[in-house]
Amino acid sequence: MRVKRNPSISNISPRYLFPEIQQQTHTFLQRHPQADLIDLGIGDTTLPLPSFVAQKMSEKAASLATTAGYQGYGPPQGSPELQKKIAEQLYHGCVDPEEIFISDGAKCDIGRLHYLFGPDTAIAVQDPAYPVYGETYLLSGKSLPIDLMPCLPENDFFPTLPPAADIIYFCSPNNPTGIAATKKQLEELIAFARDHDILIIFDAAYSCFIQDPQLPQSIYEIEEARHVAIEVGSFSKIAGFTGLRLGWTVVPKELRFHDGTPVAQDWKRIVSTCFNGASLLSQSGGIAVLEDHAFLEIQQLTDYYLKNGMLLKKAFCALGFETYGGENAPYVWVKLPEKTSWQGFHAFLEKTRIVSVPGSGFGPAGEGFLRFSSFANRSAVEKAVERLKSFSL
Amino acid sequence: MRVKRNPSISNISPRYLFPEIQQQTHTFLQRHPQADLIDLGIGDTTLPLPSFVAQKMSEKAASLATTAGYQGYGPPQGSPELQKKIAEQLYHGCVDPEEIFISDGAKCDIGRLHYLFGPDTAIAVQDPAYPVYGETYLLSGKSLPIDLMPCLPENDFFPTLPPAADIIYFCSPNNPTGIAATKKQLEELIAFARDHDILIIFDAAYSCFIQDPQLPQSIYEIEEARHVAIEVGSFSKIAGFTGLRLGWTVVPKELRFHDGTPVAQDWKRIVSTCFNGASLLSQSGGIAVLEDHAFLEIQQLTDYYLKNGMLLKKAFCALGFETYGGENAPYVWVKLPEKTSWQGFHAFLEKTRIVSVPGSGFGPAGEGFLRFSSFANRSAVEKAVERLKSFSL
Repeated sequence: MRVKRNPSISNISPRYLFPEIQQQTHTFLQRHPQADLIDLGIGDTTLPLPSFVAQKMSEKAASLATTAGYQGYGPPQGSPELQKKIAEQLYHGCVDPEEIFISDGAKCDIGRLHYLFGPDTAIAVQDPAYPVYGETYLLSGKSLPIDLMPCLPENDFFPTLPPAADIIYFCSPNNPTGIAATKKQLEELIAFARDHDILIIFDAAYSCFIQDPQLPQSIYEIEEARHVAIEVGSFSKIAGFTGLRLGWTVVPKELRFHDGTPVAQDWKRIVSTCFNGASLLSQSGGIAVLEDHAFLEIQQLTDYYLKNGMLLKKAFCALGFETYGGENAPYVWVKLPEKTSWQGFHAFLEKTRIVSVPGSGFGPAGEGFLRFSSFANRSAVEKAVERLKSFSL
Repeated sequence: MRVKRNPSISNISPRYLFPEIQQQTHTFLQRHPQADLIDLGIGDTTLPLPSFVAQKMSEKAASLATTAGYQGYGPPQGSPELQKKIAEQLYHGCVDPEEIFISDGAKCDIGRLHYLFGPDTAIAVQDPAYPVYGETYLLSGKSLPIDLMPCLPENDFFPTLPPAADIIYFCSPNNPTGIAATKKQLEELIAFARDHDILIIFDAAYSCFIQDPQLPQSIYEIEEARHVAIEVGSFSKIAGFTGLRLGWTVVPKELRFHDGTPVAQDWKRIVSTCFNGASLLSQSGGIAVLEDHAFLEIQQLTDYYLKNGMLLKKAFCALGFETYGGENAPYVWVKLPEKTSWQGFHAFLEKTRIVSVPGSGFGPAGEGFLRFSSFANRSAVEKAVERLKSFSL
């Protein structure tokens, strides 16, 4: 055929990070078919849903066989009831329901957001960062070099902010480092964005893991953020919805492009053109999650994963590793002395049968680190802790 | 903020077609609050799901509260069981399961497909056509003029094909004209594509409405199509899944870009970067739909809508309108003598309280036509037929 590839696709690695890890693990299993692996790699939830939430979705599904219960297309922006519940339960009213756009997950919306911006948009991302920010930027055909903002122990994981960026991506609690930004840091971020007319895309997919009341769960806890920030949220980790596909994006009314056009106006147009709403069953589940009593119950899921993180963190500290995250976040970020990330990945796989994620997969500043996920069953985490006791690199 | 709008967004109309119709209908209702509207506008399904399908999804939802039944992320490409069932039940083995990529709907995949291609890709679309092809092309930042291929009664709704296009979009049964292409026409399309190294993106979202065994339901019924065609499919209309969000895209192994790269390789990378799989509940519903006995049962839904189409078509013919489609397709395409589409839209709304879709919303060659949808309850269609008896423009 005469049609040409998207030239940007050759600028991203041939495989997305997680399929790459699966492939490496698969190869290991071929050599060691009996190996009893413990998967602390991809951040996938493992605990069952609260019965109330599953029950609500189950009833909704059954009702689709009845004339009264059947529903077709919903509004592309999502169920008004769900928008309202998110505004109340998660934003305590500091965001209006109509500023919330329901999605089929944060990842999908992070991809779609590029449709908002012109081709000469300069972005800056934390380094290390969730690969999807930069990869979808490239896939969308934008071509300016991406400004990487190193986040390291040396700078308390808070980067030097680049005045030349049009958009800064910021994730807190951070994937992969597990670091939750302080209020002061986020105030600095917002003040910087206001001073330089920069848009912040704030990824709050892990906000439910923040337990310390001093740490903001949403960027909108910072005054002035409504003038400069879009926030992306997700039900995946709050409620174990990874397979159900439900998230949202907040676009405050105050946000305006350079020419004065409201960002929400274009986002609405994009969402109704490229998307057709999240599955109505997932949305009914999301509504159930945000009922007061269910919302209390799901806190137990979060607590469970946080305890996993604490156990893992302790184990790595006991081995003498510099260890970050693991509290207020579902990831433990471990520094390897004098090893590359992939060397570390293979060492843990060989010696403990634990699958991790090489930090270098998240950017150059992730080199020499490994990410361990707290999303596992307790018995697996306890077994991992046991095996780690006799580990040495 | 300094960030600039996507300049292409000003090249598409400020509102997507269906929200525009909603707005017009809303304004009408404000003037006539008592009006008993019959909605034959947006093609949204109205019949309940078969109990077996709803039951399967209901059980799956309930099982998510159990340790054994809980599932997190699935493969981005979709459930292997669903891929296999689609290959068997819908493609009778002429497509391999791994060539099928499960999506959250045809619309969403039509948007994502642009990520595959370089910025200088020239596309041609049928005129009239589903607005999403062209609008997502523009949003994706590609900027060559879109070649419109008029499809009119004069050319039997089969256009002159443009040799300069890199990609031709073709939809059969067609939305909005309701015309299903003949085998001979599709052979001509594929031969043309082979001769000129053009890629066909074939939209088969309405294929289940084809009852005439002479008419192809899939482009892959044409020999050689595997070398030039991607096919986009949907559960929305087969099974009333509009609100559940489930579809698929077939990318045959034979398809290669100009530089020899397999298209499926890039599509796999894109799907795992910008998407995270369709909701597992919708996928379990899709599997249920394709069980032999359920698949027989859902044929009754299709028959029901086809009968609606026939009743509407008869009514318009009786009024002396030139009328197309309405068989082998869920849309009736009515030519208005000496009126614009929007004039016709308002005339039907004022005089019969029937909501239609102005043909001009699908492209310039749709001007002077109206689309009426067969997706309605029979009682509504019968009432519409009654009201039409005394209608005159």
